[in-house]
Amino acid sequence: MSILVVGSVAYDTVATVRETRDRQLGGSASFFALAASRFAPVRVVGVVGDDFRQEDLDLLARHGIDTSGIERCAGATFHWSGRYHHDMIERDTLATDLGVFADFSPQLPAGWEHTPYLLLANIHPSLQLQVLDSMHDPKLVVLDTMNLWIETSRAELLAVLAKVDVLLVNDSEARLLTGCTGLNEAALAIQALGPPRVVIKKGEHGALYFGSSGTLAVPAILLPDVVDPTGAGDTFAGGFMGWLADRGVDRHSDDVEFRRAMIAGSAVASFCPQAFSVEALIDLDRAALDARMATLTAMMTP
Amino acid sequence: MSILVVGSVAYDTVATVRETRDRQLGGSASFFALAASRFAPVRVVGVVGDDFRQEDLDLLARHGIDTSGIERCAGATFHWSGRYHHDMIERDTLATDLGVFADFSPQLPAGWEHTPYLLLANIHPSLQLQVLDSMHDPKLVVLDTMNLWIETSRAELLAVLAKVDVLLVNDSEARLLTGCTGLNEAALAIQALGPPRVVIKKGEHGALYFGSSGTLAVPAILLPDVVDPTGAGDTFAGGFMGWLADRGVDRHSDDVEFRRAMIAGSAVASFCPQAFSVEALIDLDRAALDARMATLTAMMTP
Repeated sequence: MSILVVGSVAYDTVATVRETRDRQLGGSASFFALAASRFAPVRVVGVVGDDFRQEDLDLLARHGIDTSGIERCAGATFHWSGRYHHDMIERDTLATDLGVFADFSPQLPAGWEHTPYLLLANIHPSLQLQVLDSMHDPKLVVLDTMNLWIETSRAELLAVLAKVDVLLVNDSEARLLTGCTGLNEAALAIQALGPPRVVIKKGEHGALYFGSSGTLAVPAILLPDVVDPTGAGDTFAGGFMGWLADRGVDRHSDDVEFRRAMIAGSAVASFCPQAFSVEALIDLDRAALDARMATLTAMMTP
Repeated sequence: MSILVVGSVAYDTVATVRETRDRQLGGSASFFALAASRFAPVRVVGVVGDDFRQEDLDLLARHGIDTSGIERCAGATFHWSGRYHHDMIERDTLATDLGVFADFSPQLPAGWEHTPYLLLANIHPSLQLQVLDSMHDPKLVVLDTMNLWIETSRAELLAVLAKVDVLLVNDSEARLLTGCTGLNEAALAIQALGPPRVVIKKGEHGALYFGSSGTLAVPAILLPDVVDPTGAGDTFAGGFMGWLADRGVDRHSDDVEFRRAMIAGSAVASFCPQAFSVEALIDLDRAALDARMATLTAMMTP
């Protein structure tokens, strides 16, 4: 079943110790869509400027991603520029040029309000709420956010949080949102704010799932090398949601497929840092993905 | 079956944001022995000064630990003093007073050379080798080390590494020892230096086991709070080795019990940071330990 994602479609300039890549395809919706499309059809709602390359739209379309919800406006595409430290984890943001994204008001193409799966990627919580309210009875809604909105738009974030089924954040965001040091306590505090299911991502250390069945800890695939970790979290979200959509899971389902979805998320996310931008997600072979899911399952077997 | 541990028996002065504790029982052998004694009899070889409190020896003895290999010399007990940062992970060493430990030459009480399990805790690799060479055909030898010896005594460390069955290190030590960024590559490089089994500890993120059966990732118990993480790595080693000794595992055994031992290590280690010094390991209830092993197993079940 189809997934609708609303988020950024952007250009990233990424500097690492070894190499710099200028204005490559990025943005939360791009990473998410390429990952999720390995499992289920994906529809993207976003905005790009008149500088956006047709070849990048074609790339998404070639993966079965419906790009008709990506509005093209006069102006520049959202551009993020950052430099990674030697550890390939810490990074400095060099520039954030919002461009046409500054006035983004998500518009759903006719009929898209009936899409059963909704991923509210990391945009202003008021826009997330606007999209959520325009949907017609989705089966499952997953929310992502970031420290910026936790710090500057907490009230709006709490309003949307109260209406979603799953929150997906990283460990520092979970702590910032709740004030809890312990991640178990942070997850309980988030559940008290609305979503009965919480995913806490920990980068190279894997991810945690908190649901009705208790806690699941999924490791990350051990990579020989990290080329560019940008977008790995959004890629995780894509694998997670893609798995659930493929299985037809809804908010009333038990935890079984959510736990499997964590492994799918970790497996897809493991490809992302192995190349710049979305490169490692292009034409990603399902057999290679299945092999990494099997590796993760073996790593978790006592 | 019995375990012999050679390592430091020390006093630690630990400062945290909340509280400072002066000259509490510490040292790798103390943490290891208290953890391992939950599973198997333990013999300690070490040295203390004339300031060492009888009550601390009594505490170890009360846990079934044979302290007759702890030599008492004129001078001061090894004293480490450190201050933890707010994150309770980073720490600054304020003082390292070796005292009688500076001239430590491990002496085994008569008959101890036949102890089947040997844990070479974190002391100079030449002393580790001296103890190893004095043993009579141990069933299993596990080695711990630290960045200091990797940097200053690499040749001696490599000599002892070539003769042991398992190396137990943390992630930064594994990288420093091998020059590999990826932990899988680091483990392979360590295996090429001797030990066919490698454990890489990652603190709050759990631990990895690399053996003939492939890789196992064991999470850490999610704690609400960290009071004092000092000794958690040695406590992990104690649970790991204790489990193996209890099961009578030797170097020719398959990986099954080694994988279970990882869970035992993680479970015991989870108690350590919940109180200062060895406090949380005193009279540690086996039922509470079993409960944490069950929690970890559940966290690993997809």
